[in-house]
Parts: sequence; structure tokens; C-alpha cells
Amino acid sequence: MSQDSDLKKEEIVEKVASGQLKLHAIDQQVGPVEGVAVRREAIARMTGTDIQNLGSFSIDAAEVVGRNIENMIGAIQLPLGIAGPVTIQGEYASGNFYLPLATTEGALVASTNRGCSVISACGGATVRIFKDGMTRAPVFSARDVIHAREFVDWLADNFEAMKAKAAETTRFGELVEATPFVVGTDVHLRLRFDTKDAMGMNMATIASEAVSNYITEQFGIELVSLSGNMCTDKKPSAINNILGRGKTVVAEVVIPEDLVGAKLKTRCQSMSEVNYKKNLLGSARAGSMGYNAHAANIVAALYLACGQDAAHVVEGSSTITTMEMTPEGDLHCCVTMPAVQVGTVGGGTGIATQQECLQILGVAGAGEPPGVNAKKFAEIIGVAVLAGEISLIGAQSAGHLARAHKQLGRK
Amino acid sequence: MSQDSDLKKEEIVEKVASGQLKLHAIDQQVGPVEGVAVRREAIARMTGTDIQNLGSFSIDAAEVVGRNIENMIGAIQLPLGIAGPVTIQGEYASGNFYLPLATTEGALVASTNRGCSVISACGGATVRIFKDGMTRAPVFSARDVIHAREFVDWLADNFEAMKAKAAETTRFGELVEATPFVVGTDVHLRLRFDTKDAMGMNMATIASEAVSNYITEQFGIELVSLSGNMCTDKKPSAINNILGRGKTVVAEVVIPEDLVGAKLKTRCQSMSEVNYKKNLLGSARAGSMGYNAHAANIVAALYLACGQDAAHVVEGSSTITTMEMTPEGDLHCCVTMPAVQVGTVGGGTGIATQQECLQILGVAGAGEPPGVNAKKFAEIIGVAVLAGEISLIGAQSAGHLARAHKQLGRK
Amino acid sequence: MSQDSDLKKEEIVEKVASGQLKLHAIDQQVGPVEGVAVRREAIARMTGTDIQNLGSFSIDAAEVVGRNIENMIGAIQLPLGIAGPVTIQGEYASGNFYLPLATTEGALVASTNRGCSVISACGGATVRIFKDGMTRAPVFSARDVIHAREFVDWLADNFEAMKAKAAETTRFGELVEATPFVVGTDVHLRLRFDTKDAMGMNMATIASEAVSNYITEQFGIELVSLSGNMCTDKKPSAINNILGRGKTVVAEVVIPEDLVGAKLKTRCQSMSEVNYKKNLLGSARAGSMGYNAHAANIVAALYLACGQDAAHVVEGSSTITTMEMTPEGDLHCCVTMPAVQVGTVGGGTGIATQQECLQILGVAGAGEPPGVNAKKFAEIIGVAVLAGEISLIGAQSAGHLARAHKQLGRK
Amino acid sequence: MSQDSDLKKEEIVEKVASGQLKLHAIDQQVGPVEGVAVRREAIARMTGTDIQNLGSFSIDAAEVVGRNIENMIGAIQLPLGIAGPVTIQGEYASGNFYLPLATTEGALVASTNRGCSVISACGGATVRIFKDGMTRAPVFSARDVIHAREFVDWLADNFEAMKAKAAETTRFGELVEATPFVVGTDVHLRLRFDTKDAMGMNMATIASEAVSNYITEQFGIELVSLSGNMCTDKKPSAINNILGRGKTVVAEVVIPEDLVGAKLKTRCQSMSEVNYKKNLLGSARAGSMGYNAHAANIVAALYLACGQDAAHVVEGSSTITTMEMTPEGDLHCCVTMPAVQVGTVGGGTGIATQQECLQILGVAGAGEPPGVNAKKFAEIIGVAVLAGEISLIGAQSAGHLARAHKQLGRK
Repeated sequence: MSQDSDLKKEEIVEKVASGQLKLHAIDQQVGPVEGVAVRREAIARMTGTDIQNLGSFSIDAAEVVGRNIENMIGAIQLPLGIAGPVTIQGEYASGNFYLPLATTEGALVASTNRGCSVISACGGATVRIFKDGMTRAPVFSARDVIHAREFVDWLADNFEAMKAKAAETTRFGELVEATPFVVGTDVHLRLRFDTKDAMGMNMATIASEAVSNYITEQFGIELVSLSGNMCTDKKPSAINNILGRGKTVVAEVVIPEDLVGAKLKTRCQSMSEVNYKKNLLGSARAGSMGYNAHAANIVAALYLACGQDAAHVVEGSSTITTMEMTPEGDLHCCVTMPAVQVGTVGGGTGIATQQECLQILGVAGAGEPPGVNAKKFAEIIGVAVLAGEISLIGAQSAGHLARAHKQLGRK
Repeated sequence: MSQDSDLKKEEIVEKVASGQLKLHAIDQQVGPVEGVAVRREAIARMTGTDIQNLGSFSIDAAEVVGRNIENMIGAIQLPLGIAGPVTIQGEYASGNFYLPLATTEGALVASTNRGCSVISACGGATVRIFKDGMTRAPVFSARDVIHAREFVDWLADNFEAMKAKAAETTRFGELVEATPFVVGTDVHLRLRFDTKDAMGMNMATIASEAVSNYITEQFGIELVSLSGNMCTDKKPSAINNILGRGKTVVAEVVIPEDLVGAKLKTRCQSMSEVNYKKNLLGSARAGSMGYNAHAANIVAALYLACGQDAAHVVEGSSTITTMEMTPEGDLHCCVTMPAVQVGTVGGGTGIATQQECLQILGVAGAGEPPGVNAKKFAEIIGVAVLAGEISLIGAQSAGHLARAHKQLGRK
Repeated sequence: MSQDSDLKKEEIVEKVASGQLKLHAIDQQVGPVEGVAVRREAIARMTGTDIQNLGSFSIDAAEVVGRNIENMIGAIQLPLGIAGPVTIQGEYASGNFYLPLATTEGALVASTNRGCSVISACGGATVRIFKDGMTRAPVFSARDVIHAREFVDWLADNFEAMKAKAAETTRFGELVEATPFVVGTDVHLRLRFDTKDAMGMNMATIASEAVSNYITEQFGIELVSLSGNMCTDKKPSAINNILGRGKTVVAEVVIPEDLVGAKLKTRCQSMSEVNYKKNLLGSARAGSMGYNAHAANIVAALYLACGQDAAHVVEGSSTITTMEMTPEGDLHCCVTMPAVQVGTVGGGTGIATQQECLQILGVAGAGEPPGVNAKKFAEIIGVAVLAGEISLIGAQSAGHLARAHKQLGRK
Repeated sequence: MSQDSDLKKEEIVEKVASGQLKLHAIDQQVGPVEGVAVRREAIARMTGTDIQNLGSFSIDAAEVVGRNIENMIGAIQLPLGIAGPVTIQGEYASGNFYLPLATTEGALVASTNRGCSVISACGGATVRIFKDGMTRAPVFSARDVIHAREFVDWLADNFEAMKAKAAETTRFGELVEATPFVVGTDVHLRLRFDTKDAMGMNMATIASEAVSNYITEQFGIELVSLSGNMCTDKKPSAINNILGRGKTVVAEVVIPEDLVGAKLKTRCQSMSEVNYKKNLLGSARAGSMGYNAHAANIVAALYLACGQDAAHVVEGSSTITTMEMTPEGDLHCCVTMPAVQVGTVGGGTGIATQQECLQILGVAGAGEPPGVNAKKFAEIIGVAVLAGEISLIGAQSAGHLARAHKQLGRK
């Protein structure tokens, strides 16, 4: 960088620090890439901090600025560990997989790895997707209850037209269902889309806007908000748990008694009991929507590694985990995940480090045919969560949760 | 690196690739730091990928390996943006703050920034903590209902002894409450701890083990699991929403009508209506535990930036957002967050980039007296979420949610 | 009664009292009608009580024994009050109605009556049914996840055959929807039926058995239970609140400000605020599924009067009540009831006193065409609940809840 | 009745029918007892119905009018059956009990009776109360968050004064806990009372008003409503399920395998599986708060027989039922009822037929010392529900639910 540019940079920093220039206006002065450093310098000065590590990154600022981030000042680094290989027998994912996990929680990778080892020793986990579709639910306000009733009738007769309107906004997406729910004189219209390899929230929003505009014009009803929370996005929600959002995934494995003893140092009966008393009865008594041990941990680590939306960990936490004795005395372990909202294109998937994690899983980019990569990814997630559950319930069953934390853990 | 070490590295990679050496055994051969590169190379080879960006990091592998991560192969990078400054009038946080937000969701930083701008233009947001305490709830199995009843009575008489047992395990933590819940013949004992500046999950687990051991010895009852899910950790849960976990935070601001027009291009009445129909009625109809627009987004971005546990985004999503007209025609905006589980020491807070983000907020490390840094941090989170809610409800109210996504957003 | 029969009666009483004869075996000795008195005498003797009031009843024991009750010893009497008239503008119910309310809660009839008076003074309440159908959900156990997935696919292809099987069991009922939900390797199949004027639980159960038998034979999968609780019957349940069960009813009325002042001694603004802070925010904070003041009270009183199943009060309690200011300064009051499970034939509707209550409402027996009586009844219930909500929120708003109870009420 | 009074009666009926006289004004003309007949005649005329059975009752109108009912026109009759005897080993209830059940659902008494028979054959069920206290939660509106925070602090310092204020309003009741919950700037204060033998809702309301008045005067904060729904009364609610309301009751019995075969025609393993897949997993998947088969049925039938508030069936439906194999191969059955809200004085308990049902149970009137009768009653309810659960799960396990309904049941 030349002396001139250094001077200019210093000048801008000063202007920002003195309030003459807004943080987001920096890019217009020096461009988005250079803007990152200038802005970081300004923040460092204003807050009296030395934040040079934030400036150490290899991802392409020119790519992420405006697409993934605004007012960028650098990047944070999350340690990435590997669990696996885990053997998966899915409809889309088949074979051995190494799981990239980005986390700062000590013991999490080791624990998941142990679960993977158990699953693989059993010959792998089976996994299937039971439902698929991203939802967005605009809310309309009717004049009165009669108007609301007429609207619901009208919707039943106009699905094909709405589908056509949605199709105009997206090359890949497809409107597959439109379900109205009434509350007072409001009608929430839950639109479900097949969004192929994209997680699809943005695609669904844009298509929903087109559908909503069509509705307001044709039927004549006020659109209150493009989202009325019956979507439901990033909030724990019975509607997602019941009807699904994104992909509904179920993964299972049967673990022989001797393997439980050898690898988990406990017994099938004990794990079944802990799962029952903790994940089912304890959760029921707590009024919890999550009948699992720590699904959110594995979901978070995988989502972060692979460029998914971290806030979708919320829905991942609603997993139901079952561990049941088979007639042969082995342990049938299963996770039911109603709402796995993932994509292999769009969002943070294009960022270099995240893209590499998707490559490790063999699911980077669009699939052929479209949609298979996201489905494969969802199946992997199901099995990864299964691994996490097996390991933690095994540990709690063996009574060494606290000890594991003491050795590896956090303050 | 010498030729010898290169040879050895290559040899290890081969052994791992051929299954002769386990991934986690690498560290014993070459040490934890060198192990990262060797393991990455092995994964690259086994998966046929080029994952060099994952190797580009500045955080100290020697520090994080074993503490935050196992089987490390590198780091992922998350773009970091800045929102603010936002003016905060808390009990612990007071003044102007710049918010570090790590996210890949386009428009999120810009949106939060807009909310900060509105809040600051109002003179700042007020925020208070209403409850504080990290919980862990072991589950015990009584012989029968009579035994369970006796146990509950015994617990009521032995709180001080349990408190003393907990104190033996931790220098900072303190047992402040022990509440039993019965389900069948199981008794869940929800232990609440003051964990000062630590998020405290690990501290609580270790102390709970000591307490549980004391109980099993003194009273004679079987410990089924150190966690019986009435804690509740990382699952959406009514018990946390009602009784709180971590810090219960409420933040508010009153926005004058003219400011709503100038900055948000909408009206108070409209925002109040959208919030009511979406965040309250829509969430109620959806059976949602989250009465907010996108609290999880801001929580996730702040938690990731600042080294918090990403899976705790789950609890952050249970925020209740209210927006009510004042008698003067202005808008009272408020967020109630029942379970903000954060710390400024431990967990991922010591990683260089995350540590710098905490420094930007002025909350890095232990506070003086202990606890004030975590409390200050929680107050900042409350106001950041408030900013996010104001901005998104404003946008949905102004009808340009989809348009904003089209310009900035994701596929 | 002759001396002989008295002797025999005494003999039987003695045998029962001494444990030689079972309570239910009495009917075989003296017939079901005489059995009532004998059994009552036996109970009186065994418990040392004088229970002659239980023997004072006019309903026909010959009719109810075996149909509605077993081991009958008499009847209890519930005081019946009348509220109304209330003006209703429904699709099925139109005109003025007197509401028969069976209750022992002082002030309830008076309060409902006040609400009716307010509604009628407004020209009546509008009411519409948005969804209709009784559900039963058998649960099947698949061999594994793959089997479960195949089952779900098979179900999608065999709806018409299942519908035909259901039709063989009932003259009136009709299978209209079959939705599978997976949890682990279990598949719950939620069957929805149009049951016309019957509440339909029994009809749905019998038809579900036929459908289930067909499934187990044709597809080959184990039926675990004819009900797997995803029906959901007589438990508070998100699935009913979201998807409806029985009839989904919405009733509304706009109350002018002056009427609120004159009749309810409060103001629209105040009622709107109480409803918002209590029925919405308070319920949200409590983790409640009922966003109303006391819908269950009115539902219970009407159901009991009209021979409905008292346990279905549970679902009635999940009502959402809204009270919003109109632009003109009046109050829009609305109740949304997702699951009104009622019939005008079957169950307790044929008992003389209950039949008379149905006659008061003009909905006794089967409608012409079938189904209209039950729909009319559901509309009346919606408006009755609306009346109850208006009155209680009015009272709480006016601050005299406790005073009202003091004057009329219970210890 | 004299000719004169007949004339007068006819005149009044005419006035009411023509709208000149209000229904509730009749009592002033002819007194409350005669008013019942006159009002019934007026309703009959206005609705064109013959409702003479409603006039057939033996309960004392003079007693119930004004106390339990207004605008009385008669009484409905509910068939009463007897189940039992059932052997109970409670802290308060000990011995054999006959259960009076008022219902119109065919098979319910027979089913409960079967459960009682099983329990008694096992030597009886054990039952204990784990928590006791009726709640009322007024909601206060603070000026802002700081004010709300100060209020919460003030409350912590003023419990004894509030307790004293409550004591001024009731001879028996006692304030035992006051817990604040914040939502925005509202503070809900959940007051818990020991109400001895009364269900206590009215007592709690009156005492809460006194406490609220004290608070508004002393601290200076607006009372929005005497109930803000965090009580929570007559709505399904996590707060009641977690913290309890009324009495928290747990009842258990161990049924030997041979008895399950002999009496229930099924096997322990099968019942355990049905309970697990239906009451736990099915309920979890449905987003239900009730983890039971049909607790509401038994609760409703007992409550109606014994003069309890029918709307409290709602809370009774939140029972958790567990059925687990013992190491010996027998079946441990248990019900956990978090909120049994019952009394033996007040409400409908004084009505003659209901009073007789309480006498059959040996719990009529106030206990000595006060409170023991209500506790005994609650224990009986717990065991009755246990009987109902055993019988229905047994039936569903044996696959004859539908068949049972076909024989005994309803259309």
C-alpha cells in the first residue's frame, strides 16, 4: 500500500472516530476490501482495543461483503475438528463420511467421534427423509370473520394460480402447498416450497411476496406482514415439530449389547433407561419441545462448519431421541428431526472455509438432479446427531459426564 | 520444517489414510500443533479434497486443542461485521457500544445497525437483569412413591449441606437454590448456581456431581443421570422460559412517532400492529415458544463473535417482544429474554478473535467484582436483540422485507 | 313393590355388602332399572351413608344403563340456569338464542348473561366454522426406518381404499383425510372424518379399526394401538390447536364505546389492554395453550347441559380471545376456538334433561341435511364463549372481579 | 299453589315472553324458588319446547340460587355409576373406597371399575401429595423497566406484610409464596395460598385483591387485572404443570404379570409398550401437554359427582402416566398429576346429590384438622385416575378398544 493510500486511510479513520463519517460509508471511499481494514482500525481506535487477530483471514472480502455481511471488520475463527468416519446407509448419502465440526466446546468432537465409531462398528446407520419443504407464512387481515371465511374458500380454488405466480420468481423453487390458519380475522397462509439445494428461506420469501401481491390484487385483502410467524422461522414451534420445515429426517442404528459394553462402558438397559427418564420424562415434565440430550450441539457444530444459518440450530434442537431394547437385548437408537433447514448453495456455503467443509462431505454446490446434495447433507446431519446422542447418553449412563468435562472442559 | 519431519508427516498421513492410525492418535506422534496440519492433510487425501483455506488461521492451536476442540484440522472463518454504536443505559452497561456480529446472513448487520441507530437517536435503551443463575438438574430414581416423598422432605432439610458440598468444587460458584420436581418415582433436582463471570455450565455440572454424590451417600437413592433435562440445556423449554436460566434480561426503548417515520419509513401504529399480529397472535397460533421476530439471529451473531456456546441460541430464541403505543402516540418497544446464558471467561472466550470481540464490548475476562462482566454482556445482548427486533418489525411493517433480501441477500 | 321383591332386594343387598355378589352382577338378578335402587342401597349400607337424593331422578334408567352408564346408583343433579337471549348471525345459527348452562359456579350464568346482553345490543355476533372433522390416530410400528418410509409412501397411494373400508362401518361418517406422522419407527396415522351430527369419537374409532385392519393385512405392519395420542383426545395438544379437531369456530362482535361504558362500566381501551396483558402476554409467559379468560367455564356449562362429553372441555380451553380497538374507537372482540367437539345425536344427548336443553337451542337430534344441527350448535357455543369472555374481561377491566365473587360466590 | 298465584305466574310468564320483564327479575316477583318454575315456563313458551324434565329435581333451589346458579330453570340429571371398591394406601386416604362417577360416556364406569379391581387385587395403590397450594396471579403495570425492577426488589422485602394483608380476608387461608414474573414492563405476581379444605379459588381471589390493594398503595404501581393468566386457571399451562396448582399427586401400583394376563387379557410388556408409544412418544409428537390416555375422563366424572368445578378438568388432563417393567417382570404403573384443584367445602359440594357423593368417599365437609378432607379426596382422585389409565391402556394393548365401544357405546 502506498503512502498516499495510508494517508487517506488515516484520514478516514479519523473521520469515523470523530463521528464525521458513518461506518458503512467507508466502503464508498476505499472499496469494500480495503474498507474492512479501515473500519477495523476505526473500531480499534474508538474502543481502545488491539484487534489485529480479527484482521487475519483468508476468505475473500470482495465475495462476502454485501452478500453475507455488512460493515465488515474481519473474521472470527472457529476451531474445526473432525469426527468419523461414520458409515451411513441413506437414500442419498451412502458410505463413510468425515464430519467437520466447528465448535469451542471441549469434548464435543471427541464425544461425537465416539458415537461415529459405535455406529460404524454396527455397520452404519440407516437414514431417510420423510418430508421436505421450506415454508413462509404471510399474514392477511380480513375485514371481518365472514371475509376471512370467504378468503379461505377462495384460496382453496386458486392454488394453481398462486403456484404459477411463485414460479415466476424462481428458476428452481416450486410452491407445493398452501394452508390457511385463522386467528380472529387474520388469516395466516403457510406456503411450502420445494427449494432444491438451497435452504430456501430467501427464495421462499421472494416467491411469497409475489403470491401475496397476487392475492391482495385478486381477492382484495390487506397483507399485514410477509411473515406472520406461522412459518415458523428461528423460533421453537409446535407447527414445525408437527408439520415439518425444511427436511424431516429419521436416522437409526441397532447397537449390540457387547458393543455397548466395549465402546461405551455401559449397558443397553442402562442407556435405554437414561434416555427414557431424561429425554422423554424429564423433557415432558420440563415442558420442553426437545426430547433429546444435546442435538443442538451437533447441529450447531455442523451448521457452522458448513455455512448454514446458525439461528436454525433452534429448530434442530427439537429432535426426539429414542433408545429401546430390542427383543434380542440390543439397543435400537433413533433420532427424529422434524425440521432440518439446510442448503448446499447460497447463504454462507460459498465462503472458502465453509465450502471446503461441504466438500469434505461431498455435498458442495448444486446437486444433479437439483436437490440431491441438500438431501444428502440432511441425511448426514441426521446420522451425526444420532452419533452425538448415543455418545452422550452413553456417557451419562456410565456416570462420567462430569468427569469428562473436568478433563477436557471449560471453566 | 526439516526433511525428516516432512518424511515423518507423510508417513503418518499414509498410516491414517490406510486406517493403521486413528485420527486422534496423531497428536501423540507429532504434538497437538503439528497434528493439526497432519490431520488436515490426511483428511484431504482421504476425501480427495483441497482444503487449504481451513489451514489458514491465526488462533493458537496449542491453546485450543484439548480445551475447545479435539481432532483439530484447522479453523473456519466467519465474517465479522459491526453494528452501532448503540447507547445503553443499563445497571452494568452504560454508554455507547459497538456490536461485533459474526454471521453469513446478508442484511443482518445492516438491519441491526439500523435498529441501533434508532435506539441511540432515542437517547438509548434501558435494560435490567431480573434473575441470574445457571442450572443443572440431576435425576434420581426412588424405590417407590413413598421413598420419593421422603426424599423431597429430606432435601428441604439439607440445603445448607448441599451448598457446602457444591462449594468444595468451585472457587467462584455458589449453589443458590435446589428445587425438586417429581415424575412418577423419579425426582429431578434443579440446582441453580451463581457462576459469576462464567456461563457456568461446566462449573454447575461438576458441583452437581458433588451434590449428587452427597445425596446418594447420605439419603440413599439412585442417581440415574447427572442431567435429567429439567436443567434444561439447549432445548426449548417452558421451565427455562418461566423460571429463567442464566440471566433474565429485559430491555426497552420508547421511539417517537417522527423517528419511526424518518428512520424506519413506517408508523408506530403499523409496527405495533405487525408485532401484535405476528409476534403474539401468529406465534400463539403456531404453538411457538418464541414471541419475537428474529431474536435468534442477533443472539447467534453475538454469541459466535464472542466465544459463547452456539447451541445456546436455542434459549435466546424464546424472547418475548412487545411493541405498544404510548398515550403520547409513540412506540414502546421491549424484549424479555428469559434465558441469556453467557460468560466472559471460559468456553470459547479465550480464543484470540473471540477475545477481541469481547474487548470491543469492554467485557473481556473476569469482572471486578466477579460477575459484573457477564452481567454487562447480558445487558448488551438484550439491547442488541431489541435493535434487531425494531429493525425487522419496522421493515416488515414497511413492507420491504423481501425487497431487502433481494438486494443484499442469499440465493 | 311386593313384599317378595323387597325380600329379594334385601337379600341381594346383603350379598353385595358381604362381598358374595359383585356390584355389576345385580342387574342380572333384578334387571337394570330395579338394579339402580338395589345397588344404591348396597352402597349406602357399605359406606354407612344416607344417599337418598341420588335416587331422586326422572331420567329413564332403562335407557341410560348400558348406553351411558354402568353400575348405576342414581343421578346427580346440576343446577341449570339460562343466559340470553343472545343474537347470533351464523351460517347455521341465526336469530335469538337462550343458553342453558349447567354449573355450580356462582356468578357464571349472570356473567354470561351480561355478555349476551352486550352482544345483542350490538345487533348480534357473527360466527363461522372454518374446519370440521373428528380425528382418530392409530399408531403402527414399522420394522425399521426404511419400512416406515415405505409405509408412508404406500399410504399416499391407498387413500381411496381406506376411505372405502371406513365407509363400510358407518352410514353417515366419511373419511376425508389421512395424514402420517413419523416418530422413530412408529407411524401415527391421523384419520379425519366427517361425522355429521354426531360428535363422532365412537364412529371414528370403529372406522379407524376397519382402516387399521385393512392396513395391517394389505401392507403388513403391526398396529400398536388404535389411538396413539396424535388424535388428540381429551388432552391439551398443539396438533389440535393447529390443525383443528371437531369444529374450528370463530365468533366476533364489535362493541361501541358507549355500550362498553353503559353495560360493562369500563372503556374499550381498558378492555383491550386487559385482554392483551392477560390473555396474550400473561398466557405466553405462563407457557399456556389457552389465550383466553375462562372459555372452559362456558364450554363446561353448555356441554353439561346439552349432553356432551365433559372431558372435551379440555380442548375448549384452548380458545384464543382477541379484543382490539377499531379505528372508530370501538372494540372488536373475537374468539377463535380450534376444537369444538360436539354432537346433537349420540352420547348423552338422548337423556331427557339434556335433550330438553338441546331443544331450547333448537338443535336436538339429526339435522336436515345431516350435520347442520351440530354445526348450528357449534356456532352457538362460539358466541356463548364470546359472551363469557366479554363479560369477564369487562369485569376484570372494571376491577370488580373479586367483589362480584364476594357477593355471589363460593367459600 | 292457589289460583291467585297461578294467575300471577301466568302474568309474569307473559311479561317475560313479551320482553317486558327480564329473566333475572322474576325472582323479585315470586321469590327464588317459585322463580325457577316461572322462568322455566317462560323459556318453554318462548322456545316452544316442553321441558318438564328439567323441572324434576330434589335439590334445594333456595340453597343453590344465588350461591351456585342464577336464572335457574331447573336441573339436569347426570347418571351416576359406582366403580370399586379400590384399595388405597395414602397418607390421608386409607382403606377401600367406592368411586361415584357421573358420566354419559358408555363403558367409562365399567372400565374404571376394572382398573379398581386390578389395583385392589394388587393390595392397593400407594399415593402421596407432593405440593399443595391454590394460586392467583394479579398483573401490575410498571412505568418502565427500572420501575419493574424496583418492584421485584420491593416484593422480596415485603412478603410478611402481604401475608398479613391476605390473612385479614380469610379465616382459613394462608399466603405461602409470592413469586414475580416479568414480561416487558408488566409484573405478574403469582400468589400461592394454603386453602385447607376449600378448592380455594374464591378465597385466593379475595385475598389477592387485598394484597394487590396493599401493593398499589404502598409501592405505587398500577393493577391491570386481578388475574393476569399466570395463575393459571382453567387453561392448559406449563406453569401449572411445572410448579403445580392445587395438589400435586402421584399414585402408583405394581401389577404382577399373571394378574395382567388374568384381568386385562394382555401382558406387562405390551402395556408398557403401548403406554410408551402412545402416552409418551405420541403425545410428544403431537405437542401435547397430556402424557396420558384419558385422565380427563375420570377427573370429569369424579369432579361432577362431587360438586367440583367442571372446568378444572382442564388441569386434570395434564397427567403423566408411566408404565414400566420391573426387574421381576411385573408392571409398575404410575400417574403424576401436577394440578388437582379440589375442595370438600364450598362450590358445588353443598348440593344434596354431590354432598352424598362426597359422603360415599368419606370426605364431606371440613376436615379435622382443616385440610385433611381435601387432601384425602385428592389422593382418591389420583388412584381413580390410575385405575382408569390401567384399564384403558390394558384395553388398547389387548386390541379391543373399538370392540368395547361397539358393545357399550355411543353412536
